[in-house]
Amino acid sequence: MSETIPATERTRIVREAVRAVYDREAIYKILDEGLVCHVGFATDGQPYVIPTMYARNGDYLYFHGSAASRMLRGLAGGLAVCITVTLSDGLVLARSIFNHSMNYRSVVALGNATLIDDPAERISALRAFAEKLIPGRWNDARQPNEKELKATSILKLPLTEVSAKVRTGDVEDDAEDYALPVWAGVIPLRLVADPPIRDARCDPSIPTPGYASEYRR
Amino acid sequence: MSETIPATERTRIVREAVRAVYDREAIYKILDEGLVCHVGFATDGQPYVIPTMYARNGDYLYFHGSAASRMLRGLAGGLAVCITVTLSDGLVLARSIFNHSMNYRSVVALGNATLIDDPAERISALRAFAEKLIPGRWNDARQPNEKELKATSILKLPLTEVSAKVRTGDVEDDAEDYALPVWAGVIPLRLVADPPIRDARCDPSIPTPGYASEYRR
Repeated sequence: MSETIPATERTRIVREAVRAVYDREAIYKILDEGLVCHVGFATDGQPYVIPTMYARNGDYLYFHGSAASRMLRGLAGGLAVCITVTLSDGLVLARSIFNHSMNYRSVVALGNATLIDDPAERISALRAFAEKLIPGRWNDARQPNEKELKATSILKLPLTEVSAKVRTGDVEDDAEDYALPVWAGVIPLRLVADPPIRDARCDPSIPTPGYASEYRR
Repeated sequence: MSETIPATERTRIVREAVRAVYDREAIYKILDEGLVCHVGFATDGQPYVIPTMYARNGDYLYFHGSAASRMLRGLAGGLAVCITVTLSDGLVLARSIFNHSMNYRSVVALGNATLIDDPAERISALRAFAEKLIPGRWNDARQPNEKELKATSILKLPLTEVSAKVRTGDVEDDAEDYALPVWAGVIPLRLVADPPIRDARCDPSIPTPGYASEYRR
């Protein structure tokens, strides 16, 4: 059985509460499908929202970047963070303009991130990033060297204060609008991958790995 | 000629500065392609990042929601905001783990949003939302009534402090790694639309409008 994550004052969904999801397994499924998260933090009252890659590793969300990054230094120093992942699933065309919407799945995680110091955990996190980007890649590519490791900061956010919001399915119109002679429906959206493009400098005798040629989202 | 937007201390791209874009036309093209933005704000030092639909109207970014929304009330009250739009364009598989990346286009806009009061501007904004979701829709659907207008808050953020960051094209590896027998390349990503699904309660005699059946992203 999957666990229900208790909503806090800060993660409880108030608007359209019927769309709220607090089930850990469902939340992790969304996080595992997404590729990019939006990292929010504030300095001197000004919020910033920065897109970056991430990976989930157990009950932690990992993200990383240059050791010189102002954002990562601020967050490692204890700044509160909000990390949001959103998947766009469809355009919802209702009979009324007011009920137009999108189908989507989003996760919001709040808390404080910490810098990962332990060398083994850092390697495990880098492996998680590579394997999230495309499963099978870690073993094929050149592993990080000391200089690269030194240049990389990796942070982790515990997934303790987290909730999801999901809209799925049909148009919802006001009762009296269903009689209107207006077409209504949903246009599904999905992120797809096209066939891999070999790097111009990649020796043609090196075969395209199956995880790249067969990659599907 | 498109205008270059002066970078401020807050919008200047420091990391990977070669990816920075300050050209207004290029920034607007990204905003016009995106469907979902991430709205960042902070209360009591805690940042929040909330996904929502948006539309660009001239030199303003419009977003909206329930008049009862805590987020919209806070932002209309003068809270600083950051709005970020990100498009995912590809997986970049380098020879080294360290140089793995994504191709993407993102825009970050900072400032203070204001509530739109003027009735004509509110209608113009709602029209922009509908036409951004799918061009042609505004005239077909039932227009907003007084009750719906009253329930909707619409905010606008002037696009004055804004920058973009773009990664495009090939793998970039360290010089000595090009000799490695590792496949390298890019897997393009794109958001696609599937054929529209008619609402179960939509009279089959109502034809699917061309803007829905022909919708492409």
